[in-house]
Amino acid sequence: MPQSPIRKLAPYAEQAVKNGKSIYYLNIGQPDIKTPKIALDAVKVHSLDILAYTRSEGSEDYRKKIANYYATKNIPVNHNDIIVTTGGSEALLFAFGSVMDVDDEIIIPEPFYANYNGFSTASGVKVVPVISKIEDNFALPPIEEFEKLITPKTKAILICNPGNPTGYLYSKEEIKKLAAIVKKHDLFLIADEVYREFAYDGNVHYSIMQEVGLDDYAIMIDSVSKRYSMCGARIGCLVSKNKSVIQTALKFAQARLSPPTLAQIASEAALDTPQSYFDAVIDEYVERRNTLIAELKKIEGVKVGNPNGAFYCIAELPVKNSDDFAQWLLENFEINGETIMVAPAGGFYSTPGEGLNQIRIAYVLNKESLIKAVHILKEALKVYKD
Amino acid sequence: MPQSPIRKLAPYAEQAVKNGKSIYYLNIGQPDIKTPKIALDAVKVHSLDILAYTRSEGSEDYRKKIANYYATKNIPVNHNDIIVTTGGSEALLFAFGSVMDVDDEIIIPEPFYANYNGFSTASGVKVVPVISKIEDNFALPPIEEFEKLITPKTKAILICNPGNPTGYLYSKEEIKKLAAIVKKHDLFLIADEVYREFAYDGNVHYSIMQEVGLDDYAIMIDSVSKRYSMCGARIGCLVSKNKSVIQTALKFAQARLSPPTLAQIASEAALDTPQSYFDAVIDEYVERRNTLIAELKKIEGVKVGNPNGAFYCIAELPVKNSDDFAQWLLENFEINGETIMVAPAGGFYSTPGEGLNQIRIAYVLNKESLIKAVHILKEALKVYKD
Repeated sequence: MPQSPIRKLAPYAEQAVKNGKSIYYLNIGQPDIKTPKIALDAVKVHSLDILAYTRSEGSEDYRKKIANYYATKNIPVNHNDIIVTTGGSEALLFAFGSVMDVDDEIIIPEPFYANYNGFSTASGVKVVPVISKIEDNFALPPIEEFEKLITPKTKAILICNPGNPTGYLYSKEEIKKLAAIVKKHDLFLIADEVYREFAYDGNVHYSIMQEVGLDDYAIMIDSVSKRYSMCGARIGCLVSKNKSVIQTALKFAQARLSPPTLAQIASEAALDTPQSYFDAVIDEYVERRNTLIAELKKIEGVKVGNPNGAFYCIAELPVKNSDDFAQWLLENFEINGETIMVAPAGGFYSTPGEGLNQIRIAYVLNKESLIKAVHILKEALKVYKD
Repeated sequence: MPQSPIRKLAPYAEQAVKNGKSIYYLNIGQPDIKTPKIALDAVKVHSLDILAYTRSEGSEDYRKKIANYYATKNIPVNHNDIIVTTGGSEALLFAFGSVMDVDDEIIIPEPFYANYNGFSTASGVKVVPVISKIEDNFALPPIEEFEKLITPKTKAILICNPGNPTGYLYSKEEIKKLAAIVKKHDLFLIADEVYREFAYDGNVHYSIMQEVGLDDYAIMIDSVSKRYSMCGARIGCLVSKNKSVIQTALKFAQARLSPPTLAQIASEAALDTPQSYFDAVIDEYVERRNTLIAELKKIEGVKVGNPNGAFYCIAELPVKNSDDFAQWLLENFEINGETIMVAPAGGFYSTPGEGLNQIRIAYVLNKESLIKAVHILKEALKVYKD
């Protein structure tokens, strides 16, 4: 089981805190945005006598409300196409287990969400990476690059849209290219769309579930974690029009009995969150992104793209090894008792040696903190020796 | 992925309900016992602004309180030996994934909790059953039977104590026999102890964690689901003194980020449940068990053991195929509009053809309902033709 790269530095961070340092945590996707009150209040007024299992696929009421939510996003699905899961993580595990056998292969554009490695290992599946580049903003690699990697063992292509860790939002045209290739080679297209709402600059998210003719091939992964800033709920879902996929995923769901009941109550209530909440959140993230990118671009030797979705960016640094640099920041650097924690990007690549001079920054802190954090990065780079 | 046998009959039950029948559900382990109020109330007074991730291994406070609880059961563990999981289900998945590779083998006395099959399939692991017999009350099979099945691929022995579906509580001597064999062959002993509290007739549960010298071999699976009748919380834990097991399981935990936060609040509060709650619950289950077993023994041709733990029993019926019989009960039998749903026991065996004339009954209904349900079974057997 591979170590999550986001957690690798945790002991150094703990030690730094013990030594009295304050840390700006740019390394994790735990937003500081408040959870909608309507969701938090729902569990305060529960009337349960017995905290019982729900149906393995999630309560019917909740799934019907989820389907209604998708309808507002022009994603036409029925509640029977939905299996409620314990976070997007479990939806990914179910998807991998349902469409792949041991030793099968899944193609994933890298850099990718590092835990995809963990779920692949747990499922005995091999990740085949196809590299996307910072110079291209991490856009979809040429479709011929995918084509070259397809073998008889290839069963699926997985994308994250908008992307963690890249912040890249795929265009409708890119999704159509992926749709064509999965149909041509009879593969599944799995799309992790947990950051759907976080599309900026007038871009509109295009879901694989909106693509006509893709019903048999498309598996969407979703979660309430980021949308409503309720990562701790551990509620997500797997969505597919492919009945056979749903039937198999349901067996995985039944083996673990039920998703968490209290969190389903909160998540169902969250669906009534007013649009004004999202408008404010998006405004906040856009301002943070603009601040972060502008500040990063001021640093000599730092290269950064223009992320237009999610709340991450990959930055290339003038260092040889960002693992060492990130550890050094925690152990040996501070300005007025403050330092930063970043996620070395090597762990987001499957190809050995790739991304070693990159870091992922999550802009889950407010603007003022981001400015201070980037200042610390800038000063640190001045004195750091590889 | 194998179908959960407990769920296989669900469509027939749904149809029966649609046709106006009432069903006594003896098929599932969802108790009707109330959850401790202290646990349900804890989430009503939460003061969260952000429903955030906890640590992947569970919050430190909660793990420390769990360790205190184990101390009261004479189980000496530290909070660092504990990983909080999303139900006992996930603890089993983590245990399987941490100590076995694809194609490895795990020996399990059958009949066993059917979802062990699902977790084995998900982990690519082969279940090797060793049969225990209704005539022996499903006691531990002779240790030589285990010995015969051990191959270079064998990595673990798994027991459920007290047993689902057997209701059998292993003695200290039986645990010592298992301890000796796992040490001799360098295997892990995984014990699913989620029914620990449900030990009757003056018997005291003996945990594998109490066995001296077993620290490197023992992995305990636990859950709040049954103990506090809070199945819907989805909180369990994996406990081991083997640091390497904990380190590997932690990687699995990190890949799925965090167990559910709200449910941890409820589960932490549940640890303060007064002993009087358990005394009343145990009294209730003992009375139910006594009623159920006495009533079953009155039926000609029915064989049943003397379960002394958990809240299940296996009954052997004078039928050829309990799958067909269970379906027939739902489709074609009723007394005053009422019928029963039972779990055919074939699904609890891994050896093909075993247990086909057995059913599992969960005594999760009150005494009056159990009497009515067994009456229905009795009358049904009079008219049923194989």
